[in-house]
Amino acid sequence: MSNFDQYLSEHREQHLEELREFLRIPSISTLSTHKADVRRAAEFLAEQARAIGFEHVELLETPRHPVLYADWLHAPGRPTVLVYGHYDVQPVDPLHLWTSPPFEPEIRDGKLYARGASDDKGPVFMHLKSFEALLRTAGSLPVNVKLCIEGEEEIGSPHLPQVLADHQERFQADVIVISDTPMLAPGRPAVCYGLRGLAALEVHVYGANSDLHSGLYGGMVQNAVHALVEVLASMRGPDGRVQVAGFYDGVQSLSAEERQAFADLAYDEVATAQTLGVDTLFGEAGYTALERVWARPTLEVNGIYGGFQGEGTKTVIPNEAHAKITCRLVPDQDPVRIQQLIRQHVLTHLPPGARAEVTLQDTGRPYVTPFHHPAIQLAAKAYEEAYGVPASFIRMGGSIPVVEVFDRLVGAPVVLMGFGLPDENFHAPNEHFSLDNFDKGLRTLCRYWTGLPDALRE
Amino acid sequence: MSNFDQYLSEHREQHLEELREFLRIPSISTLSTHKADVRRAAEFLAEQARAIGFEHVELLETPRHPVLYADWLHAPGRPTVLVYGHYDVQPVDPLHLWTSPPFEPEIRDGKLYARGASDDKGPVFMHLKSFEALLRTAGSLPVNVKLCIEGEEEIGSPHLPQVLADHQERFQADVIVISDTPMLAPGRPAVCYGLRGLAALEVHVYGANSDLHSGLYGGMVQNAVHALVEVLASMRGPDGRVQVAGFYDGVQSLSAEERQAFADLAYDEVATAQTLGVDTLFGEAGYTALERVWARPTLEVNGIYGGFQGEGTKTVIPNEAHAKITCRLVPDQDPVRIQQLIRQHVLTHLPPGARAEVTLQDTGRPYVTPFHHPAIQLAAKAYEEAYGVPASFIRMGGSIPVVEVFDRLVGAPVVLMGFGLPDENFHAPNEHFSLDNFDKGLRTLCRYWTGLPDALRE
Repeated sequence: MSNFDQYLSEHREQHLEELREFLRIPSISTLSTHKADVRRAAEFLAEQARAIGFEHVELLETPRHPVLYADWLHAPGRPTVLVYGHYDVQPVDPLHLWTSPPFEPEIRDGKLYARGASDDKGPVFMHLKSFEALLRTAGSLPVNVKLCIEGEEEIGSPHLPQVLADHQERFQADVIVISDTPMLAPGRPAVCYGLRGLAALEVHVYGANSDLHSGLYGGMVQNAVHALVEVLASMRGPDGRVQVAGFYDGVQSLSAEERQAFADLAYDEVATAQTLGVDTLFGEAGYTALERVWARPTLEVNGIYGGFQGEGTKTVIPNEAHAKITCRLVPDQDPVRIQQLIRQHVLTHLPPGARAEVTLQDTGRPYVTPFHHPAIQLAAKAYEEAYGVPASFIRMGGSIPVVEVFDRLVGAPVVLMGFGLPDENFHAPNEHFSLDNFDKGLRTLCRYWTGLPDALRE
Repeated sequence: MSNFDQYLSEHREQHLEELREFLRIPSISTLSTHKADVRRAAEFLAEQARAIGFEHVELLETPRHPVLYADWLHAPGRPTVLVYGHYDVQPVDPLHLWTSPPFEPEIRDGKLYARGASDDKGPVFMHLKSFEALLRTAGSLPVNVKLCIEGEEEIGSPHLPQVLADHQERFQADVIVISDTPMLAPGRPAVCYGLRGLAALEVHVYGANSDLHSGLYGGMVQNAVHALVEVLASMRGPDGRVQVAGFYDGVQSLSAEERQAFADLAYDEVATAQTLGVDTLFGEAGYTALERVWARPTLEVNGIYGGFQGEGTKTVIPNEAHAKITCRLVPDQDPVRIQQLIRQHVLTHLPPGARAEVTLQDTGRPYVTPFHHPAIQLAAKAYEEAYGVPASFIRMGGSIPVVEVFDRLVGAPVVLMGFGLPDENFHAPNEHFSLDNFDKGLRTLCRYWTGLPDALRE
């Protein structure tokens, strides 16, 4: 047993207790009422970094939530790693569907349940503990390390690009490592080489200047909810294809080789449907489920509201209706252009007697990493040593917009090695994190840091 | 000046203060949290009736809200009038759009603002005060009077039919008078001879067994909100016609004479659009706005909700979405059959990977009154005497389901003489009631009661 292995085993309970403390902080970045909690989470990490031995620990302020910077730079001549992660979390509603409260971490059946356990507080915490284990057992790290942990990932990282630009020297590195992508399945580690981009917006439809009585006006005036549902329905065909003109322009086709590689993963669509509790999966015709999630763009209505939502009946013609939309994008779609296309679609498909406003929100570019790079290949090797099985190279349906920004501003390869599982309810009730991956992931990271100098020398 | 006229003038401030007291009671029948308030409103009326001189004042209990019964039967040989009205009111949301709080009555610019001022507490209160004026000045009423004031009109009168059936003898009458329909416009009184029926239901769409992360599952699984909006959008064509199969079966066509009578009212669609703040009115192609509201059926989405409705972005695939629907119906549509047709439509138009439930709610049959009856013609005459202009005979787009029940169980003609105005925001924020119609309406009612014995003898 290596030294770090023994150290991690001996300190497991203490580490889990510290992680629970981190998870108790409701650092929901999108809700302004939680602004102070978000900062508390940053301060928790800063204190952890200091205790481990990091230097230059600093909260870099932004107009909203700070970015934690810290470094350990005492390995001259060795590569420098920049670890990126985020300490903010998603909202928790619908709250009534949580078995245990989202900010009261609870271990059940080998899984740690809490908002942020898997996305992304657990993995961020593991990075810190991997450095702690190496420092406490070897007295030093095999690489130079810089931490960049932000508090705005779940709201689209609006200020991180500026922070990176303002401190470009400080963030220089040879490799960027991010643990915010899922493994393929339990016991099946995976290096992610492709991420989808994001385009978010809101559609607001307005009818008359107030709600109206459907007996007095029903048949005479446009209903804002009905106008909105017609606009939204027009965005998707019965074959699941997005009907917004120009939406698929520039989408890179899947190569035969990539389709074959996806097929070789033997993804079980029937089992997935059963797990999700639906009679069939659904999506764009002509593609497998994995192809659709990893390599095809989507348009989702994330929320809708308008008119009477209370108990019973109210015979009203609503004069306002609202919907939130996000698109997942693939190379080479341009998120800003997609927002404009959707805005245009809304305005041209709105029925008479209503008006619409479209509010543009977050964007993030899709990205594919240089996966032949030795730093990325080493990740697969470290997984294999810790898990005892070969790692897969996969793409991912999610978005980490900042990956493309790192690529552009830091100019180093981005290694996406995650430890969460796809069914750990990111962004949903009962988010959890497998303690098996907590344990094996810590070993994977320690092996990765240890092997990195040689890998980059080759 | 007649005696009742003088009495009403002298007691005007006192009557308005009593009405304000009535309007302060938040008797929202659809919200179970207001159950006690609904009863308080019934008790207020009971106390008023006793003070005026009514006898056999009683709250007839139902499983939810009571029906007030009271009578004055000391005019032997004279006709018996049954006055129907309701003391319950609609919910008040969206609350932030009210200029003054809905249950703090306020007079501004000759209008009394409060929830229920026009629908239907104001008119119900006027009936009581018309009887008070006649009793205090003449010592007796020209007709026998029975009151039937319920607390469940705004939830579709679920228990009144049973109450009427259980007390059939007690509710016998020669004429039924209801003041719950609007006048044509300020200074333009109208007797209503047609009401639309109602069919209410809720649609619930379910996808996966929890909300899902759109990065991990977007493209793979059905989105409950998108499935719902597609189902709802499929219910209406671009020409505004309802697309539910069988929906128009049995609808009586408008006669050329009726279309001409509607046209003669010179309804100003451009002015209405301006008042409502829309660039154009909208509805079923091939009909004028009045025809669509008075004599054509409609399907309205009254409310919709699903997924994330909070501040900011949440990249979630919602697994539940809900909509409330009401239809306004015309002779000879059957509300229960319409509910079944819509349920069938939902199930056949639901996209794959989702399931739907349809909850059936209130129904009410459409109705046309025998408007040549002398009791109905007298209403026009009483209006003309009080307002100084001829009254119109109109239809109405609203529903008073109990009218058809009265017709069936009591077997007397129903006189629909209202005092509210179409733009008094029934069911919407800033509901109000014109004090000019309060004053003239009281005189209209006193004249009507006084003239009724002769009219029915003719």
